[in-house]
Amino acid sequence: ENETLVACLDINPVAPGHLLLITKHHYAGLLEASQAAAGDLGSILPRLARAVCRGVEAPALNVVANTGREAGQVVDHLHLHLIPRYEGDRLFGQWPHQAYEQEEQESVRERIEAALLSH
Amino acid sequence: ENETLVACLDINPVAPGHLLLITKHHYAGLLEASQAAAGDLGSILPRLARAVCRGVEAPALNVVANTGREAGQVVDHLHLHLIPRYEGDRLFGQWPHQAYEQEEQESVRERIEAALLSH
Repeated sequence: ENETLVACLDINPVAPGHLLLITKHHYAGLLEASQAAAGDLGSILPRLARAVCRGVEAPALNVVANTGREAGQVVDHLHLHLIPRYEGDRLFGQWPHQAYEQEEQESVRERIEAALLSH
Repeated sequence: ENETLVACLDINPVAPGHLLLITKHHYAGLLEASQAAAGDLGSILPRLARAVCRGVEAPALNVVANTGREAGQVVDHLHLHLIPRYEGDRLFGQWPHQAYEQEEQESVRERIEAALLSH
């Protein structure tokens, strides 16, 4: 716990040591968070991730934010998951990659860029 | 792109609009990152995530850091994935939750806390 954040074990962990990193101030999710709050979350991650890995002797770790129901967010309060990972644990499968058509890629880039620059 | 970060489309996206957010300074991964670099990554996330969701009209989004080979890290340079999500896309399945034995939970908590406080 520090001034703005609390970290605690998920009581139904994906793997032992699965941490939740939670903002004290209420934001529904990452999309709603202030820049400062998201910066606070980010700043503590290297130290906290190293502590999780050392604490449960994990060689690797995923940090995951699920933002919105469709992305797996269950609790409507901003939090990050820190999930220890091990060789062969098969926790999350291979990601289902696809390819862009060239024009689609350019179009998607332009639409995201426009959205970014207009806010 | 800003002073410290670059965002670009993943050319083999999990979904169209899948962004990579990359530090200009080299860190092998999140465990090796400075507090400031991780804070920079965090700070830009709300604005960038909103732009991705607006740009590809996604209601939700995952932010994922794969830290270490066992966690799916393929490129040894710190980066975050921003992945648009939609109802029923079935991109990432249900997480395989487990339960702690009470003593295990306390032991895990103590070990992570000790690791955190000793560094």
